Amino acid sequence: MKYCSQCGKSVSKKIPEGDNRPRHVCDDCGTIHYLNPKIIAGCLPVHGDRVLLCRRAIEPRRGYWTLPAGFMENGESTEQAAARETLEEARAQVRIGDLYTVTSIIHLGQVQMLYLAELPQPEFGPGDESLEVALFREDEIPWDELAFQTIRNALRFYFEDRRRQHFPLRHIDLETRPGQYIDN
Amino acid sequence: MKYCSQCGKSVSKKIPEGDNRPRHVCDDCGTIHYLNPKIIAGCLPVHGDRVLLCRRAIEPRRGYWTLPAGFMENGESTEQAAARETLEEARAQVRIGDLYTVTSIIHLGQVQMLYLAELPQPEFGPGDESLEVALFREDEIPWDELAFQTIRNALRFYFEDRRRQHFPLRHIDLETRPGQYIDN
Repeated sequence: MKYCSQCGKSVSKKIPEGDNRPRHVCDDCGTIHYLNPKIIAGCLPVHGDRVLLCRRAIEPRRGYWTLPAGFMENGESTEQAAARETLEEARAQVRIGDLYTVTSIIHLGQVQMLYLAELPQPEFGPGDESLEVALFREDEIPWDELAFQTIRNALRFYFEDRRRQHFPLRHIDLETRPGQYIDN
Repeated sequence: MKYCSQCGKSVSKKIPEGDNRPRHVCDDCGTIHYLNPKIIAGCLPVHGDRVLLCRRAIEPRRGYWTLPAGFMENGESTEQAAARETLEEARAQVRIGDLYTVTSIIHLGQVQMLYLAELPQPEFGPGDESLEVALFREDEIPWDELAFQTIRNALRFYFEDRRRQHFPLRHIDLETRPGQYIDN
């Protein structure tokens, strides 16, 4: 941020009175501009014993497989955002179920929230941001071609949990245990 | 948003190519500015059979009681944000536990995430944004002086769940069932 979105003048980084960390403050009108994390909402769509994955057509990680997910917008709930992203990226209609993973990706300023979802009909196809979309059984998951650690974790949890038919909410702490996945 | 935070020129609302909803787009440099929901992180601090509430010193709902919660910042996890807000508003050190409620407050562009938390020591006091802070037993909760519906719901759920000693994640859908609270 270089300019004030309220008055168009320049901003400087300073600690406002009564605050304890630097903010972008307008040099002219004094407006304080806070930067807050964004929510990535998505889901893990299940059809029978298979999971729906999308191969990314965009960077980062173009060509790698992921679960449908994207930035939550104003004017929708987290569940609606997850369903919308699935429709956009995989052209698939899902029934959003329980919240399944919550991951704070601190260095990116993102909080990823993935829901379990049911894909009632095996109808799907690549949206603008996907190269292809496909259903995978556990032994077919392209583990070495997954786009993100958070997606790998969510899928590992899912197949573990499916064996015991118990799907607790999973907090994934990427920062303190990078590469690991921990139970909540 | 009136001006581009990248170049300081004016912005207009228009639908960018390949998009399907109006955005703030810079008339000069073309930067598209997305507006995304913010996360309110907080907790329900428990000490023995009592819950810690703060009486708000700021608007909205000045003078009404609430759970410690506030805007999550960049550079922290949701759990860290909940603990920080509790330290700031109630001067209390808590141990953050399981995520307990997730509420999309669509008309405000907010997602509220409240964690169960343990307050090991009954040590607390009003921070800058609180008039007073106190511990309440169930029959002492000021139900008619609570600041927000989401807080009322979280407290109702908590005392229900405590009776059966089972604390599932609660999705609160304020938009489709205003004034109600539903089980996930």
